[in-house]
Amino acid sequence: MSFKSDIEIAQEKQLLHIKEIAKKLAIKEDDLEMYGKYKAKLPLDLIDENKIKHNNLVLVTALTPTPAGEGKTTVSIGLTEGLNKIDKQATVVLREPSLGPVFGIKGGAAGGGFSQVVPMEDINLHFTGDFNAIEKANNLLSALIDNNLQSKENNLNIDPRTILWKRVIDMNDRALRDITIGLGGTANGIPRQDGFNITPASEVMAILCMTTDFENLKKRLGDIFIGFTFDKKPIFARDLKAENAMAILLKDAIKPNLVQTLEENPAIIHGGPFANIAQGTNTLIATKMGLSLSNYVVTEAGFGADLGAEKFLNIKSAFGGLNPKCVVLVATIRALRHHGGAKKEAYNTPSLEKVKTGFSNLEKHIENIRKFNIEPVVAINSFISDSDEEVNFVIEKCASLGVQAVLSKGWANGGEGTKNLATAVVDVVENKATQFKPLYNWESPVKDKIETIAKEIYGATSVEYDNRAKLNLRRIDRLGFNNFAICMAKTQKSFSDNAALIGRPENFVVTVREIEIAAGAQFIIPILGKMMRMPGLPSKPASEGMTIDNNGVISGLS
Amino acid sequence: MSFKSDIEIAQEKQLLHIKEIAKKLAIKEDDLEMYGKYKAKLPLDLIDENKIKHNNLVLVTALTPTPAGEGKTTVSIGLTEGLNKIDKQATVVLREPSLGPVFGIKGGAAGGGFSQVVPMEDINLHFTGDFNAIEKANNLLSALIDNNLQSKENNLNIDPRTILWKRVIDMNDRALRDITIGLGGTANGIPRQDGFNITPASEVMAILCMTTDFENLKKRLGDIFIGFTFDKKPIFARDLKAENAMAILLKDAIKPNLVQTLEENPAIIHGGPFANIAQGTNTLIATKMGLSLSNYVVTEAGFGADLGAEKFLNIKSAFGGLNPKCVVLVATIRALRHHGGAKKEAYNTPSLEKVKTGFSNLEKHIENIRKFNIEPVVAINSFISDSDEEVNFVIEKCASLGVQAVLSKGWANGGEGTKNLATAVVDVVENKATQFKPLYNWESPVKDKIETIAKEIYGATSVEYDNRAKLNLRRIDRLGFNNFAICMAKTQKSFSDNAALIGRPENFVVTVREIEIAAGAQFIIPILGKMMRMPGLPSKPASEGMTIDNNGVISGLS
Repeated sequence: MSFKSDIEIAQEKQLLHIKEIAKKLAIKEDDLEMYGKYKAKLPLDLIDENKIKHNNLVLVTALTPTPAGEGKTTVSIGLTEGLNKIDKQATVVLREPSLGPVFGIKGGAAGGGFSQVVPMEDINLHFTGDFNAIEKANNLLSALIDNNLQSKENNLNIDPRTILWKRVIDMNDRALRDITIGLGGTANGIPRQDGFNITPASEVMAILCMTTDFENLKKRLGDIFIGFTFDKKPIFARDLKAENAMAILLKDAIKPNLVQTLEENPAIIHGGPFANIAQGTNTLIATKMGLSLSNYVVTEAGFGADLGAEKFLNIKSAFGGLNPKCVVLVATIRALRHHGGAKKEAYNTPSLEKVKTGFSNLEKHIENIRKFNIEPVVAINSFISDSDEEVNFVIEKCASLGVQAVLSKGWANGGEGTKNLATAVVDVVENKATQFKPLYNWESPVKDKIETIAKEIYGATSVEYDNRAKLNLRRIDRLGFNNFAICMAKTQKSFSDNAALIGRPENFVVTVREIEIAAGAQFIIPILGKMMRMPGLPSKPASEGMTIDNNGVISGLS
Repeated sequence: MSFKSDIEIAQEKQLLHIKEIAKKLAIKEDDLEMYGKYKAKLPLDLIDENKIKHNNLVLVTALTPTPAGEGKTTVSIGLTEGLNKIDKQATVVLREPSLGPVFGIKGGAAGGGFSQVVPMEDINLHFTGDFNAIEKANNLLSALIDNNLQSKENNLNIDPRTILWKRVIDMNDRALRDITIGLGGTANGIPRQDGFNITPASEVMAILCMTTDFENLKKRLGDIFIGFTFDKKPIFARDLKAENAMAILLKDAIKPNLVQTLEENPAIIHGGPFANIAQGTNTLIATKMGLSLSNYVVTEAGFGADLGAEKFLNIKSAFGGLNPKCVVLVATIRALRHHGGAKKEAYNTPSLEKVKTGFSNLEKHIENIRKFNIEPVVAINSFISDSDEEVNFVIEKCASLGVQAVLSKGWANGGEGTKNLATAVVDVVENKATQFKPLYNWESPVKDKIETIAKEIYGATSVEYDNRAKLNLRRIDRLGFNNFAICMAKTQKSFSDNAALIGRPENFVVTVREIEIAAGAQFIIPILGKMMRMPGLPSKPASEGMTIDNNGVISGLS
């Protein structure tokens, strides 16, 4: 049996002109800012708070994932096709892929098989330039900081050893993680330690994803916390008068992008923050745009539900006044085997026993979603290696918990393979949806908020703080940042902060090692482990297998 | 008297939809790749070699400029307006501005006053993403190099001390000139010295500007010379299998961009290489596109004619088979005073004596242009501080040399102010144009080619080579790069390599300090002085004075 590659399937698709997709959303052609024939930016004035209230938001998240991922993007796109198949007007709202992983191991992020967004090459490459704009805004602030360090006029007396703001580049480039800059004499600035993160790890990305309009964007950009002066005063981006120029660089990036799915349904793709150190979902503006234009919006949050859904609900939905009406928990039989103790080489070998044991992980996620007053639906992302008895076990076990579990075959069959999933989601939205409630109030004390997440979502017995974290807590208090949201940075491989604890760990303590501040995004970021912000390339980079012919046709991109 | 700022003039203009501009060039709407309503990319298959032969190419260059510049871009745009006013179908073809200077001192590069290309904010900011694509292609190669250094598979044994390829960023950021990367332990690569250049200084930019199609682009990208192995073998980008992935990143950047002038005439803007270490003109593809679509094409080369025009003619026109029919030499009275010995504070004070003395500089440029078998026209870029007697002197003195000198008032009056200039240009094109001939043959020995330029164009008595340059010459010979074009890197402030020698210096020797290789661009770059490849920001960066309001309207951009 041989399969077509994702790019082959995508290239065979005869795309509709983006005008036709816009027409499905009742957008006038004159309101579109086209980027070629198949991409367009949408103006912010299409956002309509009244429509947002009446339309239906569906969040796609997952159980604790294996390294290969659970296929949330593919299920999100597939579910959108399925909803349209059963005559619901649905739009999928997704994150933009980062360029770095496209040339590394992971590949792009435009779905897979017969559940893709297209044109996949463009989406996976520069798209409409949003990441570039974010990168430039981030790096303008860096250049302004280093320029001020050696400036004779308006010198802010910044202590170079305290600068927390890093440069970014959208590339997997490990050699830039830890660098020394400003070498070579007095003309070249002040020598200091620095480093590059990958662009989606930029706070500017987190800010763009949380913002509502230009005023709010400028406020947040100005609020970015940079470090301290030699006499210990905090320095913000506004002290460098950076916020207007940074916002100017983001003037187009703030607008969501419209593309299409393989079945010619609307897809809005905008923003792409890291799911570990940021909220890991598309922009609030994009979600609101979707809800202003479409009766159903399917969206996705990064990593497992303990990270992605928790942040989507407690941070984005709480801040943005969103009311998600159903949460789809994506699970693969493979991941359930993993949580039941299967080794990597046995992931594709049926084992009812392992699935039974591993179900504890999914069960905890189901319980967690209900704590937000939302009913979940389980989507079993279908693989050839799944056995009927494993799949039936999951369906029956979920049913015993009052949850519908449905086989999702979007990868193989597009919307035809997800009609049952779509029907289950509509059933929850139309018959079981309530008013979602966040787990904590942003105004609560920082330690209370952290403890709520750790105990309620992770299942920890308590939270410990390393000395550095205790110092950080005092700094947060001194700077008056107590009422920010908590954006946990934890391994996605376990409910706990120990990647080895699969399934549903119990009787564990989580340790906060340090706490970072993203003052513009309004995040307090407790670090529960080592966070990677700049990936590397593999020994054989994906770039080696790519080609482009004389007509500009690409192959080898995935 | 108060003037409107460039951005105010630009914002008051009600732009035509880019479809309407395309219509003037007989481009079908379906062939346009729109980027919003006012920008579009043009497909390469609109290039028509037969039309190129029959249409008229006009090159705008300048006498040896003062630091403020002579206004070549403004004259190029103004002349295009004027040509259209006298019923010639004309298109201006320009370079894209770099983002770095926009936030520094220099500002953007979209013309000025009533001779501008619009939308100026977009053109001066990210435009259609070409610079970003070039930056990413450049930096992907960097990441592949550093990844290979520590790779266990396919390790090419590259000696990190020999790596010539640098990363780029489109930002004025002096602290990145000289850095150490790969610090922090075995996971972070191999420590080595490195640095960032500004994006227009990338060889990828030079390559994009010289290329003809995807096959040629891949060939050139693969030919990039990186450094040596520990056993002294040369390493090229193709050894890292980088050329396809780099070309994929450039799949849209290779297409020229269409915008409009303030008088709704077509402007093609594409590429933006440095004029010191590269050829300093827009892409060959853009020039050919203009000539395929328009009876007159006005284009511009960076710096004075000794650098910009020399390279445009000997490199770009010779390689691309172009036949420029007229060269416009832009001169300001201010610059003639400067070459006559006026100090900076007296630049705006009329002085016939100084202008008379300074004319020697312009005269040498006139002689030089004629060496290429092309007739020049002198455009006196009008300033309020010009006196009638100074202007009349220049006009009469030029007339005595058989050259038309015409006052150009495009900045103040748009096309209405350049009709006389346009008429003079048409006169040369229609009555005096001959077959241009380059000054040297690419196949000649390297030292002969360098000597030809130094003696014929600069007026040097001889060329000397430092020891390093002599070593470089042997390397070039060993690598078989003798038949590349010569891309001189010299101060733009003097005909000589000594910036202090104004006017028409004589009896001087130029010294080649070292010779670089841009093997993909096919350039041998003799370095005659210190070349700046990464500018810094000023004490008070331009970013501080910029604002953007809640409707996205920008002010303070220049």
